Amino acid sequence: MSIDNRMEHDPLGPVSVPVDRYYGAQTARAIENFPISGIAIKCMPFVLQALAHVKMAAAQANCEEGYLSTEKRDAIVEACQEVLAGKHDEEFLVDVFQGGAGTSTNMNMNEVLANRASELMGGVRGEKRLVHPNDDVNRSQSTNDAYATAVRLSIIPASRHLRDALVVVAAALNNKAEEFAVIRKLGRTQLQDAVPMTLGQEFAAFATTILEDCDRLKETERLFLEVNLGGTAIGTGIAATSSYRARALQHLSRETQLPVVGSKDLLEASWDMGAFMLHMGLLKRIAAKLSKIANDFRLLSSGPRGGIGEIVLPALQPGSSLMPGKVNPVAAEALNQVCFYVYGMDTTVGMAAEAGQLQLNAMEPVIVFSIHNATTLLRNAVLTFSRTCVEGVQANVAKCEANLMNSTAFATELVTTMGYEAAAKVVKERLAS
Amino acid sequence: MSIDNRMEHDPLGPVSVPVDRYYGAQTARAIENFPISGIAIKCMPFVLQALAHVKMAAAQANCEEGYLSTEKRDAIVEACQEVLAGKHDEEFLVDVFQGGAGTSTNMNMNEVLANRASELMGGVRGEKRLVHPNDDVNRSQSTNDAYATAVRLSIIPASRHLRDALVVVAAALNNKAEEFAVIRKLGRTQLQDAVPMTLGQEFAAFATTILEDCDRLKETERLFLEVNLGGTAIGTGIAATSSYRARALQHLSRETQLPVVGSKDLLEASWDMGAFMLHMGLLKRIAAKLSKIANDFRLLSSGPRGGIGEIVLPALQPGSSLMPGKVNPVAAEALNQVCFYVYGMDTTVGMAAEAGQLQLNAMEPVIVFSIHNATTLLRNAVLTFSRTCVEGVQANVAKCEANLMNSTAFATELVTTMGYEAAAKVVKERLAS
Amino acid sequence: MSIDNRMEHDPLGPVSVPVDRYYGAQTARAIENFPISGIAIKCMPFVLQALAHVKMAAAQANCEEGYLSTEKRDAIVEACQEVLAGKHDEEFLVDVFQGGAGTSTNMNMNEVLANRASELMGGVRGEKRLVHPNDDVNRSQSTNDAYATAVRLSIIPASRHLRDALVVVAAALNNKAEEFAVIRKLGRTQLQDAVPMTLGQEFAAFATTILEDCDRLKETERLFLEVNLGGTAIGTGIAATSSYRARALQHLSRETQLPVVGSKDLLEASWDMGAFMLHMGLLKRIAAKLSKIANDFRLLSSGPRGGIGEIVLPALQPGSSLMPGKVNPVAAEALNQVCFYVYGMDTTVGMAAEAGQLQLNAMEPVIVFSIHNATTLLRNAVLTFSRTCVEGVQANVAKCEANLMNSTAFATELVTTMGYEAAAKVVKERLAS
Amino acid sequence: MSIDNRMEHDPLGPVSVPVDRYYGAQTARAIENFPISGIAIKCMPFVLQALAHVKMAAAQANCEEGYLSTEKRDAIVEACQEVLAGKHDEEFLVDVFQGGAGTSTNMNMNEVLANRASELMGGVRGEKRLVHPNDDVNRSQSTNDAYATAVRLSIIPASRHLRDALVVVAAALNNKAEEFAVIRKLGRTQLQDAVPMTLGQEFAAFATTILEDCDRLKETERLFLEVNLGGTAIGTGIAATSSYRARALQHLSRETQLPVVGSKDLLEASWDMGAFMLHMGLLKRIAAKLSKIANDFRLLSSGPRGGIGEIVLPALQPGSSLMPGKVNPVAAEALNQVCFYVYGMDTTVGMAAEAGQLQLNAMEPVIVFSIHNATTLLRNAVLTFSRTCVEGVQANVAKCEANLMNSTAFATELVTTMGYEAAAKVVKERLAS
Repeated sequence: MSIDNRMEHDPLGPVSVPVDRYYGAQTARAIENFPISGIAIKCMPFVLQALAHVKMAAAQANCEEGYLSTEKRDAIVEACQEVLAGKHDEEFLVDVFQGGAGTSTNMNMNEVLANRASELMGGVRGEKRLVHPNDDVNRSQSTNDAYATAVRLSIIPASRHLRDALVVVAAALNNKAEEFAVIRKLGRTQLQDAVPMTLGQEFAAFATTILEDCDRLKETERLFLEVNLGGTAIGTGIAATSSYRARALQHLSRETQLPVVGSKDLLEASWDMGAFMLHMGLLKRIAAKLSKIANDFRLLSSGPRGGIGEIVLPALQPGSSLMPGKVNPVAAEALNQVCFYVYGMDTTVGMAAEAGQLQLNAMEPVIVFSIHNATTLLRNAVLTFSRTCVEGVQANVAKCEANLMNSTAFATELVTTMGYEAAAKVVKERLAS
Repeated sequence: MSIDNRMEHDPLGPVSVPVDRYYGAQTARAIENFPISGIAIKCMPFVLQALAHVKMAAAQANCEEGYLSTEKRDAIVEACQEVLAGKHDEEFLVDVFQGGAGTSTNMNMNEVLANRASELMGGVRGEKRLVHPNDDVNRSQSTNDAYATAVRLSIIPASRHLRDALVVVAAALNNKAEEFAVIRKLGRTQLQDAVPMTLGQEFAAFATTILEDCDRLKETERLFLEVNLGGTAIGTGIAATSSYRARALQHLSRETQLPVVGSKDLLEASWDMGAFMLHMGLLKRIAAKLSKIANDFRLLSSGPRGGIGEIVLPALQPGSSLMPGKVNPVAAEALNQVCFYVYGMDTTVGMAAEAGQLQLNAMEPVIVFSIHNATTLLRNAVLTFSRTCVEGVQANVAKCEANLMNSTAFATELVTTMGYEAAAKVVKERLAS
Repeated sequence: MSIDNRMEHDPLGPVSVPVDRYYGAQTARAIENFPISGIAIKCMPFVLQALAHVKMAAAQANCEEGYLSTEKRDAIVEACQEVLAGKHDEEFLVDVFQGGAGTSTNMNMNEVLANRASELMGGVRGEKRLVHPNDDVNRSQSTNDAYATAVRLSIIPASRHLRDALVVVAAALNNKAEEFAVIRKLGRTQLQDAVPMTLGQEFAAFATTILEDCDRLKETERLFLEVNLGGTAIGTGIAATSSYRARALQHLSRETQLPVVGSKDLLEASWDMGAFMLHMGLLKRIAAKLSKIANDFRLLSSGPRGGIGEIVLPALQPGSSLMPGKVNPVAAEALNQVCFYVYGMDTTVGMAAEAGQLQLNAMEPVIVFSIHNATTLLRNAVLTFSRTCVEGVQANVAKCEANLMNSTAFATELVTTMGYEAAAKVVKERLAS
Repeated sequence: MSIDNRMEHDPLGPVSVPVDRYYGAQTARAIENFPISGIAIKCMPFVLQALAHVKMAAAQANCEEGYLSTEKRDAIVEACQEVLAGKHDEEFLVDVFQGGAGTSTNMNMNEVLANRASELMGGVRGEKRLVHPNDDVNRSQSTNDAYATAVRLSIIPASRHLRDALVVVAAALNNKAEEFAVIRKLGRTQLQDAVPMTLGQEFAAFATTILEDCDRLKETERLFLEVNLGGTAIGTGIAATSSYRARALQHLSRETQLPVVGSKDLLEASWDMGAFMLHMGLLKRIAAKLSKIANDFRLLSSGPRGGIGEIVLPALQPGSSLMPGKVNPVAAEALNQVCFYVYGMDTTVGMAAEAGQLQLNAMEPVIVFSIHNATTLLRNAVLTFSRTCVEGVQANVAKCEANLMNSTAFATELVTTMGYEAAAKVVKERLAS
């Protein structure tokens, strides 16, 4: 054993851990066991924060129940606050693709908190620490309720983060809607010339559809406020008291400033992935809408001469390595691709959610990662699209006018006076001329 | 031309129509143009009914606006009532896979109502009819608002139909939960022996998860109450007055006994498929839960000797053409397969929803068909599963007891007294013995 | 018991069967047990035919092995030929959504053949028949090899059926390519004006991409020639001799005129769904290409005035119930929707293929149905698209020319002489003018 | 402007570039324009290598055609060799989610090579460089052929990399098959006791199914050998001569040691994503098989007491933060989750492939990333699963024997002597006893 490592033991035997790490034996094993994506759980800060909140709430409840001394509680709480402040991000190194239904994530947190709390109490890291990862930090908990609660709560700030970005792009679209309010243009259905409208109406509809999903995101939060903390291993609450459960939920509500409620059927709550499915479905819906908007931006800016050409997108970069002067709708194309990726994440979540068995769904980690991944990508893509494309889009008023006047879009008004068939005849003649 | 056909004309020219049909030229063209699945729109009675309601509401509003005589209105309304009563089901023969964003479905209804209304007024079918499909029945409407409104409303009774079936299976599961309330058994996480529970708790959790989705189905109805009737072609309301719109919505609410509301942004409402996506996502979630339950039934009944064997499913049919005495969990397997099919429908809806362009989504017909198809299959599969499997499931109490007592499931209780590590050692020794 | 029914018994007890039916007890149970989609297995004639071929081959091999008298063999073979000739289609009434991994389909065939063979031998239908469904018709077989072999072989004619349709549409596209060979037009990348090309090149590329998939379909056939007949229940060949197996494969090759080969690892072959996945993936690829072509048809025909307008699609039906004179690309839209449906079927197959467990995949029926369903829909949609759209498409030469000349598509030629940057400047100036 | 930056100009204006970078203006713009995933294209080394090969081949052909001096050619070739050697990895910083159909990736390479080649010729980096990114490095090319060719070729080494990993796990499974060759056990279909087999047969079938996909991977390589180099912008070969094309393909074959062939229809080849779809479909099939194997490992090791328990997986880490002594099948669970992720990538590729328009598919970057991402994850997961799980799996011989002897698996042998119905009765009686 190198002098840079300390030796620890867990139920499976000895494990070597880097001396300067707060994490311990089980985390070290997990890092070794899952060299899969190279993406560590620290990429999901909302998960780490929510898990720290859970540990803090549990420590407080355990102390009140008499299972934890006030010294240990205070040390654990302080360690949690450090995690919340981002001071130990580099300790969370287990891969996002991990077996064990989140046990490794939970133990990574338990070990970091135990060692750090021990230090805060004047003790050491490692096996001689003053605070035990399982018997103290994880007291009255199982991964199946502590982790499960944390990952649900982690969706809420992520969802709000995305909502903020959607509000930004909706505002940019609404600004443009105002700017384009009086520009008349051709409305199209099935890509065929239909009836007149304004470019402002077109952009306002984009904003409307996005703001609607901000409302839906807000509503969906509710599904994640229901948590199974206190249910422990399978929802029967083994190794936890019901008074602990009540206290822990209260502390959790206060710490997170969220109106957390306990699941009524804790057994069902232990394995059900329904909330994740609905939320991921909503992310897919957002992707569908954004992709449609990106498609419309590309259609409306097609040309500049041999297409619709009614809007002009900001020139972000030369559009071709060969064709001089070509400029492409790259921001919209990037957004499309992110949306297709989000569709992929929905497939993954759908598969994983179906794969639960008996009292648990062991595939929760990939569900959680997929949702956070999709959320982050959507947020970044939306903000980029807003900044580099929507804010600078210009109307080509002359093209709008020409496309409209050149068409038979006004014929529909004739229907109310001369009837459908006679009007159809008029159009046919005009188009033939 | 055969004596069994009558000749009609539409803007594209002459069309031959069977004399005994109420439908007309455009329906005849559509039947000819879309020989794709052999499944006609009559397979979606909720769609036909909702469209009849829309036509009835429009006729009433048009009459009040002075666009339609009371004679025509009364005849159209009566024809609608006949459609609602199922008297003309055989007239709706256009394929569910149709281009034109529902125009053929809408015109099929317009033509049937026009010819039938004409008859009710003492007139004939065909071109000399007293009521015009476009200028009278479709007055103040476009497919893009009339059909769009109808297909949204059609989801509500379909959803309730499914909910009824889910309530049935949940009740059957809850009955079993009660019956099995005191049967102790082994709880399992990740297919590994975990901690004790009862078989009743296991079945109650199945019921809980299904009833939760009954609530979600109810909530999602709301999304379909918002309709774009009066928006006509692209949401600008061309060829319709706003007073017509208000009256039509009122009549529609009264006829359907649903609190229908008009969309605030009619342009967005003309192309947005968001409500369908969320609803289809919910159907997928229901499929995920049902598939998980089917999987659990199969796991728990595995054996009968070489598996878990804690429950015994009713023997529905000999399980093998070769292996004598084998009985298979066929009801659960059928349910699984329907669930996988529903996942497929979600993919279809997701693709189609993304494919909208500019002022319309031309792929709405496949979205509507996929949802109704998925709903019907789920309903039938759930009722079958409930009747043939859940109601007759038996506990194998001896096996439940043996699996539990043979395991180390009680060790978790030791944790609170002797600590995690010492308890782990006890388990290790016991398993090795 | 009604006089119209006969009573039969299977290992689970008595069952009532309509007297005029060739099917027996187990089929009657299955019809009762799976009232799910209303779609009976008779909708997959290629499956029934392949299964009849398997039964015929088995009867011949069993006779040669001494397990079956020549009288029984001849009667079974004749009954199989009747099935192949479509004489008993109405006997195959089990739902396509069925549990039991195809046992009900297999027993439906066994029962029909046993009763019909009995009649041919001068005996009766029902329990006193001279030929036994299991001990004679199903002799040396299990559903897990007989059905599994049949459903694999059924893909080959289905695939050829689709290929025929693809060849038709490719030929129509190539005809148009020739017709449009000299029409110059603008090539577009990312919907932006790029460089010159001909309309003929555009259509030839459509044909090329489809013909490529005809080749792929042909190659994929090979995967279905490898069958597990003789492996019986799980691939160990229990209850079948290896000499029977060799003979049965020989007979099967001769009857089907296909170079059938036996799987080397019969255990793997019993559960592996890999061939279905690759084939379904190919159907999805075909759908992707067809959908892209449909999209291009819609883009190129967009307008007629306010879009690209370079081609004119045949007017199939009035395009709007409101907008007079509007004509829509309905054939292309129908094709798109079928393609989205095919994507859905790929999801279903992917889910079901993953759900195999241990020695069998019980979800094979939904895999088989999904593939046949997707194949039929694609075939019908492609033939319809070819007939109603491709064959009649016209070039708008003036628009092709105008779009080209109005653009800066010729600038790329300048690059080789004046360099990229100078040429870009020229384009910028021209577009600004 | 900071002294740490140099100023460059492209057709859109001035851009600031870090002085120590080989990349130039367009790369700098792209880094700024696509702050989406934080994953840079350097994560796909096979893509960079293939693109360097393309540039090397083009330089040689251009020189032979007289478009490039031998000095420039030699410098470009040397720069390419440095890229191949991994010396400039840190220069490839554009996000994998990028608009522009790969133009930014192509320009990143062009700029790095131009600046590095300039240095090698004694010149500077930046605008005064001796080699031009477009007019020299990208000479006779467009992104649409150079990038398109490179990303296709990049799949081949990636595919081989995965194949190597599959061979490893197949070998480990085959080793176990040999070790377990004589261990008799119960075969199961539909999770129900079926007929006898050996544990060795079960493991051999796992190996067989994986090795089959090694063959399929090898076959699929062929699809990527057909490239469109020389087709330039849309396949018409504008700005490139056909003699250049022939030479470039020859050089490319020699450099890559792959029998590269030119596409026959270059227009089709410019937009077709078919090869990617089939390959991704194959990756999904591999995922389906691996997930099934992981599921079987979990089923067979379920228990240890209350499940099937026929195999014992290596204990990788304590299985629960609460339940002492619990050990979970974490390696199999991690593999499952990666497989679900791969399914997601197939969805993404399927969406993106359908989204091509007219002469190009602008969504190629997300297709390429998804495939490389899926490939890497599968490779890592497979190697991990092999090392941590397969290699150490043990048989529980006693449990295998007990499960078998306790069952009625031997009854099927009775069928050939006493008939199906009599044998069924025997089984029924035995199970009831």
